[in-house]
Amino acid sequence: MESNTASSDEQRYQVRKLEITDKNKGFMELLQQLTVCDFVTDEEFQTRFEELKSYGDDHVICVIEDVHLSRIVATGSVFIEKKFIRNCGKVGHIEDVVVDSSARGMRLGKKVADFLADHARLSGCYKVILDCSDDNKAFYEKCGFKQKEIQMVKYFI
Amino acid sequence: MESNTASSDEQRYQVRKLEITDKNKGFMELLQQLTVCDFVTDEEFQTRFEELKSYGDDHVICVIEDVHLSRIVATGSVFIEKKFIRNCGKVGHIEDVVVDSSARGMRLGKKVADFLADHARLSGCYKVILDCSDDNKAFYEKCGFKQKEIQMVKYFI
Repeated sequence: MESNTASSDEQRYQVRKLEITDKNKGFMELLQQLTVCDFVTDEEFQTRFEELKSYGDDHVICVIEDVHLSRIVATGSVFIEKKFIRNCGKVGHIEDVVVDSSARGMRLGKKVADFLADHARLSGCYKVILDCSDDNKAFYEKCGFKQKEIQMVKYFI
Repeated sequence: MESNTASSDEQRYQVRKLEITDKNKGFMELLQQLTVCDFVTDEEFQTRFEELKSYGDDHVICVIEDVHLSRIVATGSVFIEKKFIRNCGKVGHIEDVVVDSSARGMRLGKKVADFLADHARLSGCYKVILDCSDDNKAFYEKCGFKQKEIQMVKYFI
């Protein structure tokens, strides 16, 4: 029974890269659960989508779609920073991970974090990093992360 | 007298963007003071330099050259991440800030941090962020930053 449920969940919750039609599947509304995320027109969305697409594998947004409801229920992004240190090494930066409040407790957040970390690893990064609140530390530890430094911020607006 | 010294320092320590010839002015040796930074051939350096240059203003490396010695004595980088949140906002990420051990105490680190933060602000970012050790927290507070979150890391090698 358990494996049937797992298999059924895998069919229902499909992990893939962001597509332009995801704006109509609640992608922006999902981001609103993460932070300030104002209304964006279809044109603004398309412009940003195309900008990010031009980076190819250097900027990837992962989404999980609930195909029963045609809704995006989890997302996160990773971009690949190219450095001179570490023999011209690369670092993955994970950003904007969020799971829909109605879809928590199904390990979708871990699926997103794993997808993004795998992408960084397969892109040749020597590490992947992210910033999070103390409240989310335990979650990322379950995903194989360890606390290292502190994040500093300077706001302009 | 003091303004003469300041003016003389400004002439001696020139703040600008990285140039390809900076490899011959100790740029890589300076990065070695920050972290693991293995030997890089001229060809590898050029390839990475051109890759980063293709990002235009979305990835900028600041250096300070001691023009008396023709040596790079401070550096730091910033890249501009494009998001969907915050009305398709942008965030600057500062990385790899280091000042040569022989050139500390002259506020060159603050000059680098200010250059990078100004670049992010002028690029339309709503904030600029960085990760640092607890030891460097006070320095970045002098540069106008505040502690916010924690950094998590997952190493692949």
